[in-house]
Amino acid sequence: MEDKAQIQEAIKIQGEVVRKLKSEKASKEQIDEEVAKLLELKAQLGDDGKTQFVLKTPKGTRDYNPKQMAIREKVFNTIIRCFKRHGAETIDTPVFELKETLTGKYGEDSKLIYDLKDQGGELLSLRYDLTVPFARYLAMNKITNIKRYHIAKVYRRDNPAMTRGRYREFYQCDFDIAGQYDAMIPDAECLKIVHEILNELDLGDFRIKVNDRRILDGMFAVCGVPDDKFRTICSTVDKLDKMSWEDVKKEMVNEKGLSEEAADQIGEYVSMQGGMDLAERLLQDHKMSQSKQACAGLSDIKLLFKYLQLFHVTDKVVFDLSLARGLDYYTGVIYEAVLTQAGTVSAANEAQNDTNADESVSVGSVAGGGRYDGLVGMFDPKGRRVPCVGVSIGIERIFSIMEQKAEASPQKVRTTEVQIMVASAQKNLLEERLQLISELWNAGIKAELMYKKNPKLLSQLQYCEEAGIPLVAILGEQELKDGVVKLRVVATREEVDISRADLISEIKRRTEA
Amino acid sequence: MEDKAQIQEAIKIQGEVVRKLKSEKASKEQIDEEVAKLLELKAQLGDDGKTQFVLKTPKGTRDYNPKQMAIREKVFNTIIRCFKRHGAETIDTPVFELKETLTGKYGEDSKLIYDLKDQGGELLSLRYDLTVPFARYLAMNKITNIKRYHIAKVYRRDNPAMTRGRYREFYQCDFDIAGQYDAMIPDAECLKIVHEILNELDLGDFRIKVNDRRILDGMFAVCGVPDDKFRTICSTVDKLDKMSWEDVKKEMVNEKGLSEEAADQIGEYVSMQGGMDLAERLLQDHKMSQSKQACAGLSDIKLLFKYLQLFHVTDKVVFDLSLARGLDYYTGVIYEAVLTQAGTVSAANEAQNDTNADESVSVGSVAGGGRYDGLVGMFDPKGRRVPCVGVSIGIERIFSIMEQKAEASPQKVRTTEVQIMVASAQKNLLEERLQLISELWNAGIKAELMYKKNPKLLSQLQYCEEAGIPLVAILGEQELKDGVVKLRVVATREEVDISRADLISEIKRRTEA
Repeated sequence: MEDKAQIQEAIKIQGEVVRKLKSEKASKEQIDEEVAKLLELKAQLGDDGKTQFVLKTPKGTRDYNPKQMAIREKVFNTIIRCFKRHGAETIDTPVFELKETLTGKYGEDSKLIYDLKDQGGELLSLRYDLTVPFARYLAMNKITNIKRYHIAKVYRRDNPAMTRGRYREFYQCDFDIAGQYDAMIPDAECLKIVHEILNELDLGDFRIKVNDRRILDGMFAVCGVPDDKFRTICSTVDKLDKMSWEDVKKEMVNEKGLSEEAADQIGEYVSMQGGMDLAERLLQDHKMSQSKQACAGLSDIKLLFKYLQLFHVTDKVVFDLSLARGLDYYTGVIYEAVLTQAGTVSAANEAQNDTNADESVSVGSVAGGGRYDGLVGMFDPKGRRVPCVGVSIGIERIFSIMEQKAEASPQKVRTTEVQIMVASAQKNLLEERLQLISELWNAGIKAELMYKKNPKLLSQLQYCEEAGIPLVAILGEQELKDGVVKLRVVATREEVDISRADLISEIKRRTEA
Repeated sequence: MEDKAQIQEAIKIQGEVVRKLKSEKASKEQIDEEVAKLLELKAQLGDDGKTQFVLKTPKGTRDYNPKQMAIREKVFNTIIRCFKRHGAETIDTPVFELKETLTGKYGEDSKLIYDLKDQGGELLSLRYDLTVPFARYLAMNKITNIKRYHIAKVYRRDNPAMTRGRYREFYQCDFDIAGQYDAMIPDAECLKIVHEILNELDLGDFRIKVNDRRILDGMFAVCGVPDDKFRTICSTVDKLDKMSWEDVKKEMVNEKGLSEEAADQIGEYVSMQGGMDLAERLLQDHKMSQSKQACAGLSDIKLLFKYLQLFHVTDKVVFDLSLARGLDYYTGVIYEAVLTQAGTVSAANEAQNDTNADESVSVGSVAGGGRYDGLVGMFDPKGRRVPCVGVSIGIERIFSIMEQKAEASPQKVRTTEVQIMVASAQKNLLEERLQLISELWNAGIKAELMYKKNPKLLSQLQYCEEAGIPLVAILGEQELKDGVVKLRVVATREEVDISRADLISEIKRRTEA
């Protein structure tokens, strides 16, 4: 062991020597010689003692390469266009908050919060979602009315399932309406937004399930669930999208100590699905109608469906009493959009074989949200309430689907928008290329050249084919003499001489689309 | 003290009671009663023991409100358009890296890195800049050629000077070209990009200072600075933009132990400014020409100016031997853009009165960068070099200036792009409004309505004036009967009836610009 430490020290010093030479741009020979010594030392150390640097991103995170970024940009643009169409402003908040801002907002999941090291000063945590920072922002600035979207990364020390688009660092994409308004009007707009976005992204058929926390609570009450078990029974109901009723019932009875009779009554209700008619029927239901809360929820569901009919979106919306949603802070309407077609099949199969059942929660779910009228009041010093309703688009899941689609498609994803390459047919024309490309840039044309003094014409053309650049402006002695540029269409190989004076308008004409 | 702890515990429990009632939507009376008990308990505790929640963002961070976001979006769009015009792709990396990825890259400044708490698993740190993650990305993916931009937030536990746009969480906006290319072609493009962006943002006049690390090192060598003092003397030279030469000299001689003669020789060189002519003169300089390194740097500066002439940007570029730049990893050309006019004056004055001299480093500086040929090799297991050159736009400083400009301007900053408000002139027309706005949204028109069943016409019109919405579609009994909509121009109050069939095209016609 003594020896090993000595060698490691020697490696460290020799590494310094090499780095110094490199930073001083020493001759190649000199560097190579010292690198050889370094490698020799490392060989002495053997494999087990490798001081090798680990080249990776942290667990549960990833880089986005240019192709992924191109897809991400396209998805974001579609979503942002929709949010803007609905008149939303946007805000941004810091990536970390005071630790106490997040405390007590996420129930059990609080253990998944990333804390920063105490380096002196405030105790900080990375944001876990965008909703709590939004509520903090409203309370801090005493804002009582706002319609805003916020697209940013959030952090959860969860078990990542990256193949299915579940990460520890991931985007959230939230739209929320805060303010005291007439019932169900902003709520209906949130569902309209989900409908517009999923339609426009063209991810296949989808359903938007709707329920209300008050209906769930009322249902628990009339089924004989003790008050203090509402939340825990609710979280068991939330598992119905990935567990059979039998298993859910078992959990209620065996683990949570519910009577079998109560469980069976719940079982009857949570199997119900429908539309406005179901809400009307339940308002007449002899048991459900005993709960004031449930009736308030059911009346709102009726109103919601009326507005959704005016928006022509009821074909995709279903009132589903089994929808529970995990988060504690919802107080009224809740909803969740799921893809019902291809594209999700493979993920669903995967989930069934998954030993960690918890990981499959979001399979197929691509949007969700609801009303949370109490959260802002938790931050306001006087407890003033600001009613809020919002929706979060499950953007990472959507990225995964779009990436799969792009890979299956014969069409290449372009990672730049370059319209033209400025090329030369002969040697010694770098200055002429630089002059021309500068003119093009100044005219707002997206243009590239190769960073070589004398690139071969063929390699310039090949680069265009690979990168999908549609046009080439070719300069040669003759063209310069004639005051023209040879304009080549990469796809057809057609070439025409264009006078320098007309070049910019000609490029614009050909690349407009 | 015993009593205080008991009261605090009682407050905690009572807080839970109140929260539970609220989340269960208990009656107002019931909640008020329990809140009163809570307030009584808090009163018992007195002021000093207040458990009052602190409503703030962490030190050195801020929220962006909608107005700031609108300005931010405009600035980003200008910059991204320029990067795309030059054919750049974009990538993204996680907000945190393995701690060891950042170790040994920032010299003294490493103490400013934010570490995450060890919660089991990997040791992580928040990124300090975008350059080191970029180098890690290139080495990890064995990429030897790329032109990319990356706009994202970085984190430094620095002393924030927020009035001057210096934060602990701030955006960086980087453009880099990696690859083995012919000298100075990508370098010249980076400077062209700075020129284009600063022109387009219209921030006032600016200068781009240029120098080369090899010229600095060569200069130190011929002036008799010992090899091991290059870096520390270099960082003293870097202070010349905010300290007088006398003070810089004092630091060199008294603190860093340089001979007075060497310092005076350096003083002569660092007072030199010019263009290609200065590079030519120094290549003939009897002392400077003794350094191979300096000559290599000077030849490249000459070549750079030749290319910049072809780009027609030399009017703003000055070869300045006092430019040093802080970061260790630069190996060749370095540059920095400074605003030379109004808008920066106040900040400069402020800086002079600042006791912490270090904080004024970036006053007036709005872009900077250079060549760093060794950084990627630090990550590559075999030390393979990938030469890089890049530029970072000082976007936070630019935001501050743009915000000041917006405040000084009589023109209001709009925070949404809404084209039309769907309003009603009488009661009971909510359903008609919902139906119409749905049609407009489906046609891609940006539209809003008030979330009330029966809003007053006046309040609907006032909302439009405040939000800068140009058009109103007014529905009334008569209009519905006639199959028309009253289209009102907010600015002129002019009103015309438009048939429902023509409404969409009419709105598009009027809001095209």
